[in-house]
Amino acid sequence: MPFEGLSRSSLIPALQTIAARLRIDSVRATSEAGSGHPSSCCSAADIVAALFFGHMRFDAADPQHEENDRFILSKGHAAPLLYAAWAEAGFVNRGDLLRLREMSCDLEGHPTPRLPFVDVATGSLGQGICVAIGIALNARRLGSDYRSYVLIGDGESAEGSVWEAAEAGEFFALDNLCGITDVNALGQSRATQLGHDMEAYAHRWKAFGWHPIVVDGHDLAAILDALDEAGRTKGQPTMILARTLKGKGIPLMEGQHGWHGKAVAHGPDLDATLAALESQLVAGTTTPAIPPPAIRGATTRGPSGELPVPAYRIGDLVATREAYGTALAALGSIDPRVVALDADVGNSTFSEKFEKIHGDRFFETHIAEQVMVGVAMGLASRGAIPFPSTFACFLTRASDFVRMAGISRSNIKFAGSHAGVSIGEDGPSQMALEDLAMMRSVPGCAVLYPCDGVSAERLVSAAAAHEGMAYIRTSRPKTTVIYGSAETFEIGGSKVLRENAEDVATVVAAGVTVFEALTAYDRLQAEGISVCVIDSYSVQPVDAQVFTPGPSSSPSKTTTRPAGLAMP
Amino acid sequence: MPFEGLSRSSLIPALQTIAARLRIDSVRATSEAGSGHPSSCCSAADIVAALFFGHMRFDAADPQHEENDRFILSKGHAAPLLYAAWAEAGFVNRGDLLRLREMSCDLEGHPTPRLPFVDVATGSLGQGICVAIGIALNARRLGSDYRSYVLIGDGESAEGSVWEAAEAGEFFALDNLCGITDVNALGQSRATQLGHDMEAYAHRWKAFGWHPIVVDGHDLAAILDALDEAGRTKGQPTMILARTLKGKGIPLMEGQHGWHGKAVAHGPDLDATLAALESQLVAGTTTPAIPPPAIRGATTRGPSGELPVPAYRIGDLVATREAYGTALAALGSIDPRVVALDADVGNSTFSEKFEKIHGDRFFETHIAEQVMVGVAMGLASRGAIPFPSTFACFLTRASDFVRMAGISRSNIKFAGSHAGVSIGEDGPSQMALEDLAMMRSVPGCAVLYPCDGVSAERLVSAAAAHEGMAYIRTSRPKTTVIYGSAETFEIGGSKVLRENAEDVATVVAAGVTVFEALTAYDRLQAEGISVCVIDSYSVQPVDAQVFTPGPSSSPSKTTTRPAGLAMP
Repeated sequence: MPFEGLSRSSLIPALQTIAARLRIDSVRATSEAGSGHPSSCCSAADIVAALFFGHMRFDAADPQHEENDRFILSKGHAAPLLYAAWAEAGFVNRGDLLRLREMSCDLEGHPTPRLPFVDVATGSLGQGICVAIGIALNARRLGSDYRSYVLIGDGESAEGSVWEAAEAGEFFALDNLCGITDVNALGQSRATQLGHDMEAYAHRWKAFGWHPIVVDGHDLAAILDALDEAGRTKGQPTMILARTLKGKGIPLMEGQHGWHGKAVAHGPDLDATLAALESQLVAGTTTPAIPPPAIRGATTRGPSGELPVPAYRIGDLVATREAYGTALAALGSIDPRVVALDADVGNSTFSEKFEKIHGDRFFETHIAEQVMVGVAMGLASRGAIPFPSTFACFLTRASDFVRMAGISRSNIKFAGSHAGVSIGEDGPSQMALEDLAMMRSVPGCAVLYPCDGVSAERLVSAAAAHEGMAYIRTSRPKTTVIYGSAETFEIGGSKVLRENAEDVATVVAAGVTVFEALTAYDRLQAEGISVCVIDSYSVQPVDAQVFTPGPSSSPSKTTTRPAGLAMP
Repeated sequence: MPFEGLSRSSLIPALQTIAARLRIDSVRATSEAGSGHPSSCCSAADIVAALFFGHMRFDAADPQHEENDRFILSKGHAAPLLYAAWAEAGFVNRGDLLRLREMSCDLEGHPTPRLPFVDVATGSLGQGICVAIGIALNARRLGSDYRSYVLIGDGESAEGSVWEAAEAGEFFALDNLCGITDVNALGQSRATQLGHDMEAYAHRWKAFGWHPIVVDGHDLAAILDALDEAGRTKGQPTMILARTLKGKGIPLMEGQHGWHGKAVAHGPDLDATLAALESQLVAGTTTPAIPPPAIRGATTRGPSGELPVPAYRIGDLVATREAYGTALAALGSIDPRVVALDADVGNSTFSEKFEKIHGDRFFETHIAEQVMVGVAMGLASRGAIPFPSTFACFLTRASDFVRMAGISRSNIKFAGSHAGVSIGEDGPSQMALEDLAMMRSVPGCAVLYPCDGVSAERLVSAAAAHEGMAYIRTSRPKTTVIYGSAETFEIGGSKVLRENAEDVATVVAAGVTVFEALTAYDRLQAEGISVCVIDSYSVQPVDAQVFTPGPSSSPSKTTTRPAGLAMP
């Protein structure tokens, strides 16, 4: 059992032993699996040992504790190192480490939130630091003093999203956030661009407003000092730039090319590797106690009350994007978990309506959609319900983040405005068409495309209540309100807008195309042709009952017909 | 008519007049259209005047001239300024400027390559500078000394892709590239993060290895001096940081919030605006001559010969990703236009086979997929045939670039490896599934998913010959070669692999699922059930003839049956 209060002179040998064990566990696990990234684990083993067992405050028995310091492994391919740390902390059964990458084991090749100590899935580089911005902002939202740590790779720093995060960290002055870059100088296929030029890294982070600290990433005392310095640094985030060797501690691979993503083969190689690592264990050390988090009782309340009935009358003209903003602002008033984010188009998406009332829960990421979504992932992982919005076409900028948010089962409600060709003269670069393909490929994501103000407001509410990801697609032009304010809308539903016994076809529409369908209906009626018109506002899932092929071409689920709809 | 050889003292007043005219034209056009971004045009009018009429060398009558200096308007919403400059240069009919944003006019709200002086579509911010990297690399490829200029916005600098481009510009030491940032301090909804902190911008660009020059963006002499300095700067690209005012020259909007994307209303506002701008015209000046490009006769040769027949025999085991690399390297040997790019996974995608033989035409962008695709867009716009490759899942990182490449009709051949769940134990973050949705939503993009080495090699060849975008999806595991080496494959084709008169169903497969389908076939046969099995290697377009519903459930286009296929 760990105990508390080790002096620095006792702590360092204890951490040396832990670091050696983390390396041994990482090597054993990957060799047993026959694949994985032991070299990437070993470069960061000292950093993780110092962070987990010499610095962070957390309840190792309760990784989801609201006041725990948080750690995000942005370089997700070093997953075995993370698993080994949680084994060392007592949460993971050490024996399970050897089941790494087995189908029946949650210790996957890259971390996912199936593990309670993983907030979001990583493994697509450059995302974890964006998520960490959101987790640090969440501490501010809750009034908690937990600190957030994120470990990124040096090769990863080439991802632009890292610099979006850098700018956001500066903008929000996140002194409760500390990044650590594992500068091992080797990418997958070749050396990184900057190699071990630590000053170049320091210049970059300093230019982006962070406090950079260059350390030897294998010097435990230096790492601890840097972590302390980060804690004392006010008004800006810190980036610890740790000079390391890939495969550190393993004679076979230390600082060598050609060892990215390769397990050590069983036999003489593995024997020699383990012998070398075991020789690094310091005799007689004890695992230090992990200080518990401060208990402040910060809790997130759920919703109180319901959204007001939409204040539109049939025939009113209102853009669905504006109705979105109205509903979002109202939602913020009844649910403190709701937060909003935008990428400098809040006056177009109408998230500004939320900002005006709930400025402390509105996060502006400027023109940087990837970090906007990453921040939303971080906030969602800690209990917030984020509504990030921008032009729908520019959400595709964060497509890989959306993908990973899907894998993370993030409770994010995306809003994309200005969808489709109806935006007109701005041209194709501003017209979202691909957004439906992107969002519909996320399992479990509710894709909602309201046509009028009433359905838009109701669907914002439905999205908030939905467990998991949702996407609300809004339109730029004002459209006619066609639903009564008492009409209800559910995910997976649809509305039969026109229906006759003589229907020869069914026209399925959503959003702005509903009005084109209704116009077509009128023209066809004038020619004596009857068609059924359905508003399929739930694009995913579609209304399974209505769209199940039956003997007739016309749907039979009449209960989805709006109340009071005048039938021709 | 322009004339040559103006002294600096004559040039400045001439450029002042041109800048005033560019502003007038931008205001008139947007007011006539009733929408657009005059304030964003006016901040950059002096920069564009100096660049086009005091610095760049190009043939204004032939915007596509291979040796022209290139200009990319990354802040695409300033399109009216670009159109006005080409009107001033004589290429665009000045009267057409007033048809801005009309359905029948190519002068769209944001630039597209329907205009011969536009290399790629812009309007999604942060992309133009990535494209400019590719265009500058193209000069090196051709041995040309044309120079490349890109104008970006300050708000745009928040996009991470800008910093991917910064890193690539440093890595490739592109001293033939000059960026200009229009630092007007105002975004759409609020001030930019850095406002007019010019030193902060300079620190960032310097930290990323560029030569930064801070100037007053309305001081024509200072702009000309900076452009000259950029031309003298060797071994690194230059970034001119121009301090400007949004709406410069228009009393109504100069430096004011609330004028993003707003046209001046007809009536007193427009009258006063035009009067103010017309007062800035300098009497008696003459439009300077634009120096012509150096004629070096650099031309890109087309292909010579054909790819060798795939060197596999039926039953061989080969991963389609490896066959891709083999074909790509061979293609490079017969077609000098072919170039390859990778994002640090060339030893997994097998683009390394190309690099080993054609290192001068291989561009490594490290772990930065957005700039990889942007560079490909730039190269493609100047006649190269780029093959950018990475794990298919990480191509989604560049989804918005893929979208804009589609709008640009870029002749890019994407390759995504490690597609689908067959990659196994690395976990969901590494498994591309969404890539098909992304690529299939691009109009005209051929989406190809070969199952074996022969079809993979043949489809690389088909993709190269295809006019427009193509996507080749490859697999990690080795698969059995099922096609004879003489088998041919075409975009829009398919292969009937199993077919019987008694077929009760058709199984359509592609890539690794072909082998699952063949296994299912064998099992069903053992139970006395016959099914048809089709390899739909062309996922988009699908084989229209085979998949057109007919009276039978089985396809009838027997010519697609592979030669020599043993029927059971």
